[in-house]
Amino acid sequence: MATEIERKFLVEGDAWREDIESEAQMVQGYLTGNQAVTLRVRVKGDAAFLTVKGQPTGISRSEFEYPIPVTDAEAMLKELAVSPPIEKTRYRVRCGAHLWEVDVFAGANAGLVMAEVELDSEDEAFERPDWAGREVTGDRRYYNASLAQHPFSTW
Amino acid sequence: MATEIERKFLVEGDAWREDIESEAQMVQGYLTGNQAVTLRVRVKGDAAFLTVKGQPTGISRSEFEYPIPVTDAEAMLKELAVSPPIEKTRYRVRCGAHLWEVDVFAGANAGLVMAEVELDSEDEAFERPDWAGREVTGDRRYYNASLAQHPFSTW
Repeated sequence: MATEIERKFLVEGDAWREDIESEAQMVQGYLTGNQAVTLRVRVKGDAAFLTVKGQPTGISRSEFEYPIPVTDAEAMLKELAVSPPIEKTRYRVRCGAHLWEVDVFAGANAGLVMAEVELDSEDEAFERPDWAGREVTGDRRYYNASLAQHPFSTW
Repeated sequence: MATEIERKFLVEGDAWREDIESEAQMVQGYLTGNQAVTLRVRVKGDAAFLTVKGQPTGISRSEFEYPIPVTDAEAMLKELAVSPPIEKTRYRVRCGAHLWEVDVFAGANAGLVMAEVELDSEDEAFERPDWAGREVTGDRRYYNASLAQHPFSTW
């Protein structure tokens, strides 16, 4: 078990691209809708993961993640997902002491670029880069599970 | 991925106890309620499993099961389950070519004894033992996920 503590921001401009350390293609879908527990299936490059997330409390959320066979993930996305999967490219971007994740969405969420920084505690200090615009932590519309059902292009 | 094909029966009498091959204590809970997808957490002796099940089609159901740490399972049962867990003892009982599973429920489902036989295909023949009473395959009240929310003792 882990507790995920993160803050999320909309991304402005392209300056973050200068500090990219790595990138990965992701396809992810959700097997639950409108439930306290979120069940996510993610294919990330050649790997796949099944993730159970509890309801957020403030900016924290309990998370249980397990590697699974890619063939299982693909079957679940095809047969059991409640909506079409989300496609995005995730970039890892260095900023000060933290590695940020910048997600550039595609498909029905094209146009949305969102960054998150994972923290060890709710009050941990972090350097906020210039390209991190409006904070959207806790705004349910920006949850990936919500974006799967109500894509950015339909807002 | 596996497809689970099984038939379930209420158990009459104790004659099945003569053919017990093994037994295991189980505690299991559900992290979803009223969803097409069922997410089950089970602790079975010293092991634990996370299982994703699709909606049944006839007597078949897609199933994805993964071993997980017992500490994770216990945390999920405590924090994320939608109802108190089901407790039961599962006996493996030989009958002809098949190994049956006889579940003797405890707690809020005490009094319920149910047997199931897993088949390789929907039309596979199997010997039906004398102690296998009324068939309840497909009767939603007898789904474990349903028994967790509407225990046998409340019927």
